[in-house]
Amino acid sequence: MKYISLLGATGSIGEQTLDVIRQHPDKFKLKAMTFGRNIDKAIPIIEQFQPEFVGCVDEATYRTLKGHSFQYDVKMAAGDEANIEAATYDAVDVVVNALVGSVGLVPTLKAIEQKKTIALANKETLVTAGHIVKEYAKKYDVPLLPVDSEHSAIFQSLQGEQAKNIERLIVTASGGSFRDKKRTELEGVTVEEALNHPNWSMGAKITIDSATMMNKGLEVIEAHWLFDIPYDQIDVLLHKESIIHSMVEFHDKSVMAQLGTPDMRVPIQYALTYPDRAPLKEAKSLNLWEIGQLNFQKADFDRYRCLHFAYESGKIGGTMPTVLNAANEIAVDAFLKGKVTFLQIEELIEKALNRHHVISTPSLQDIHEVDKDTRDFVQSILA
Amino acid sequence: MKYISLLGATGSIGEQTLDVIRQHPDKFKLKAMTFGRNIDKAIPIIEQFQPEFVGCVDEATYRTLKGHSFQYDVKMAAGDEANIEAATYDAVDVVVNALVGSVGLVPTLKAIEQKKTIALANKETLVTAGHIVKEYAKKYDVPLLPVDSEHSAIFQSLQGEQAKNIERLIVTASGGSFRDKKRTELEGVTVEEALNHPNWSMGAKITIDSATMMNKGLEVIEAHWLFDIPYDQIDVLLHKESIIHSMVEFHDKSVMAQLGTPDMRVPIQYALTYPDRAPLKEAKSLNLWEIGQLNFQKADFDRYRCLHFAYESGKIGGTMPTVLNAANEIAVDAFLKGKVTFLQIEELIEKALNRHHVISTPSLQDIHEVDKDTRDFVQSILA
Repeated sequence: MKYISLLGATGSIGEQTLDVIRQHPDKFKLKAMTFGRNIDKAIPIIEQFQPEFVGCVDEATYRTLKGHSFQYDVKMAAGDEANIEAATYDAVDVVVNALVGSVGLVPTLKAIEQKKTIALANKETLVTAGHIVKEYAKKYDVPLLPVDSEHSAIFQSLQGEQAKNIERLIVTASGGSFRDKKRTELEGVTVEEALNHPNWSMGAKITIDSATMMNKGLEVIEAHWLFDIPYDQIDVLLHKESIIHSMVEFHDKSVMAQLGTPDMRVPIQYALTYPDRAPLKEAKSLNLWEIGQLNFQKADFDRYRCLHFAYESGKIGGTMPTVLNAANEIAVDAFLKGKVTFLQIEELIEKALNRHHVISTPSLQDIHEVDKDTRDFVQSILA
Repeated sequence: MKYISLLGATGSIGEQTLDVIRQHPDKFKLKAMTFGRNIDKAIPIIEQFQPEFVGCVDEATYRTLKGHSFQYDVKMAAGDEANIEAATYDAVDVVVNALVGSVGLVPTLKAIEQKKTIALANKETLVTAGHIVKEYAKKYDVPLLPVDSEHSAIFQSLQGEQAKNIERLIVTASGGSFRDKKRTELEGVTVEEALNHPNWSMGAKITIDSATMMNKGLEVIEAHWLFDIPYDQIDVLLHKESIIHSMVEFHDKSVMAQLGTPDMRVPIQYALTYPDRAPLKEAKSLNLWEIGQLNFQKADFDRYRCLHFAYESGKIGGTMPTVLNAANEIAVDAFLKGKVTFLQIEELIEKALNRHHVISTPSLQDIHEVDKDTRDFVQSILA
């Protein structure tokens, strides 16, 4: 039995993680969970899974939660500390970090200190502080298991292989909601159009990040840290069907790939069962003759400027990816709230990047300060 | 340094094996080799690689070979025994069995007895005597490494995985020279047309087997034995670009695949370097954006009757696959010599299968007898 702590239980990844846990009552038990504001989703989850600990980040929501009477004795906590408490909860073996944004970083580090296995869906953790997280994981000898479909595909492709033989990683990208639009057609696109992802059902922020390809850019940075591969050996390949989830080319020119119908439960479950696998009955078998055709295109850095920013930020390193990520979070939020246009997202990010003076090996404190400073700067433009 | 014995050095797989050996003088040394009649190819090979032992199966060719003066002291032998001598040659670590036809069986068994690692390109070895070869490999604890691109792809996809988690094997098929023709269009096709394979440059027999899909059928039987998977868990998928070389679906619906530009040197080298890999500079990197599109179709058993025969023979088991293989060898030979039409190949095979009374657990002697009996029967129809 693996005891699981789930940070961000009411989000898209959180819900799908619960779906996996539900299918294997003999293998997994939810010990602890956290959520933000979505108490309507949280209460049935708590009642069904009966975790020992429930953390609610939002203080007001926490007061409502406290007022609810549960059928069993449940420990509760509020605020950002609740994520840390859940991440370090005593009996827990695996922490699934499904938080959105850079708030996922500290709970990851605290969980590593407690030698919990980390199933990482929160890409900002590695983007903003890859060097620190890797150092922690090495020091405490803790496995970092990817949950993103792309990184899981690479991770699966690397099983039984040696790192020295890797030639390049090939991260596939659906191209997001606007993949069939030219750059000139992006001027007047709406939030609703941007949220309509062709292949994956995901949260709002990541769906916008898919449309700008910032999501792919963040994944490239994440892949760099997870697999210890230089940026010039990481390629992005447009593949609109999202069937090949990513690939690894070895120096004998053999390419290993992981494929499947788009279903996040597959990589989530793989992280939970790793290094074993378990049946996942509800997921759909891949029948390529039904799909008929897989298409591929080169990723165009002029069309997808956020992808260009991500590569450049990653190569510069230090605090630059922190700026990239923080500026993107504020810009996407502003777009979702109708304050800026779709193309202004990348303008805001570019401004933040251009103004930043890099700290090459930042401490956690530096990262926090740069993160806050960047958010304040982008907000100031928006004001 | 791995010492290699190469059975069938002048054939297509043989030549490409030599190409791999040539690229890694620090890793591989050709210790022994055999060939049949092609002395014009054999002599430069012998001179370049200077193997200690050279076997020549054809007696008349052997006499010519003996008359040639080499720059070094080379041991020679003639006849079928030469393949066995090369397969069991003292210092050899790996035997690459690149023989064509059921003549490959006994050398494989003898090599296993001498605990040589087997790199198997001769599919008839497993098709005609899978149960015996597997028993030998188990008894002598000898690895059977696949060289066929499809089986190598499956083998690579299984690295780091557990057999209990396999849901099905998906063997891809280019569809051969006539993949775009309907069955009714096959009536008048010529030998030249049949030999014009769209993706792979291979020997004549296997190219015809690709056109009839008997090659894929034999591969299904081979996969059954190599990976110990029931026939109803082995699918054939038409994939005309031959880029995905085959796949494995696990019970979590995750599919692992091996891809690459069609180049037999990749799987050959993998068998020689396994479990490691080595650079293969001359092979071309796979750039899917250049290829643009991969296509898939269901394999139609009515269109490809040989594929149907192979599945049925495999499921019946015993001596039935021996009949399938022997009848096919004679029928393809007759087609290549212009004695029968393309569609008569499958008619001849069907006649041989229909007349056969299966021996369910045949001895090597039974297999030899059934093999000979089947050849005689098909020849008698042709006479």
